[in-house]
Amino acid sequence: MIPRQACRLCVVTDPELGRGLGHVDIARLALEGGATMIQLRDKSAGLRRLLPKAREIAGLCRAHGAHFIVNDRLDLALAVDADGVHLGQDDLPSMVARSTLGPGKILGVSTHSLEQAVRAAQEGADYLGIGPIFPTTTKVTGYAAVDCGTIRLVRARIDLPLVAIGGISVSNVAGVIQAGATGVAVISAIVGADDIREATRAFLTAIRHAESGR
Amino acid sequence: MIPRQACRLCVVTDPELGRGLGHVDIARLALEGGATMIQLRDKSAGLRRLLPKAREIAGLCRAHGAHFIVNDRLDLALAVDADGVHLGQDDLPSMVARSTLGPGKILGVSTHSLEQAVRAAQEGADYLGIGPIFPTTTKVTGYAAVDCGTIRLVRARIDLPLVAIGGISVSNVAGVIQAGATGVAVISAIVGADDIREATRAFLTAIRHAESGR
Repeated sequence: MIPRQACRLCVVTDPELGRGLGHVDIARLALEGGATMIQLRDKSAGLRRLLPKAREIAGLCRAHGAHFIVNDRLDLALAVDADGVHLGQDDLPSMVARSTLGPGKILGVSTHSLEQAVRAAQEGADYLGIGPIFPTTTKVTGYAAVDCGTIRLVRARIDLPLVAIGGISVSNVAGVIQAGATGVAVISAIVGADDIREATRAFLTAIRHAESGR
Repeated sequence: MIPRQACRLCVVTDPELGRGLGHVDIARLALEGGATMIQLRDKSAGLRRLLPKAREIAGLCRAHGAHFIVNDRLDLALAVDADGVHLGQDDLPSMVARSTLGPGKILGVSTHSLEQAVRAAQEGADYLGIGPIFPTTTKVTGYAAVDCGTIRLVRARIDLPLVAIGGISVSNVAGVIQAGATGVAVISAIVGADDIREATRAFLTAIRHAESGR
């Protein structure tokens, strides 16, 4: 289980898109700006190098009352006692991940269609990523943009928190929230910003505004 | 704890070095040839794709009375209930891995010097990889070849099973065993062989012969 408000704004730390900042600095600034969830994603670094960073981010998240989620690596999530993991469609299947993680950890799953969303929900996901909503160059997903119509379709069928991702900016986030997303996950629009703290605040303001008009 | 005889001949499945065979076929042929341990190593494939292969290899190892070890990914090892994991110096530190894995799983650690070997032993490794013994092109390790002198040094200080790796062939394995290695881990000399089963058998014969002369 994950509180809905924790899904409001997830910042995915991706140093490759940042301006020279590493995972920890990105996370710290995003938390200071009000991020409700930090997702550590690093497909290339060995865990020896990631471990101290993950521990530090876990501590920062606790201090800020935010959730800390590790992408893909259940082993790292378990090792640093993160709140949970986020899995893509190429990662461990949800049912296997759930049984490896135990019931106490949060399981988020990236989905790219209504069908994938329904399956992830059935297999024990606590929240669903959904996207890419808009075309994005952050990650070669191999999936076409799904647009806000898919959010509405999934929202109508599934009661889990939905975290929209992919090409979301301060100027288009309102439509995403109004379509039924519980929140959004952001990489480049925050990690690549001149001021990560301010960019995070601007997102939160836009999200809250959209929520009040929902 | 791992029985010493399980460390006699570990075959590391690496399809990139094989002749078109995948992890499962390599493992099956090596087990038919008498491999005592299979290590699944794949740094690039997502776990969704590796999971069914790991499960199949786990079943084959059980059927052959061999040990099944997963490289790096504790999460995959836990998910398929492998016998344990093998960690490199860039992977999770041994103490962290041990506490995440629990006491029942085997923990193997790659070491490249006496100092690393002593540390891994202190931190809870069940067996030590040691190498590269000879120059090898299988893996860019960033470590110079350590030669059989290092095996002797480590053997004199540490009572754990030692699995030598790196450039080991049927023609040089005797010296490695006589220097004090419990066994060897082999990639290219078996995975790249015309006949994996026969290559495995030839290694075992050479190892047994060297053991009897030790």
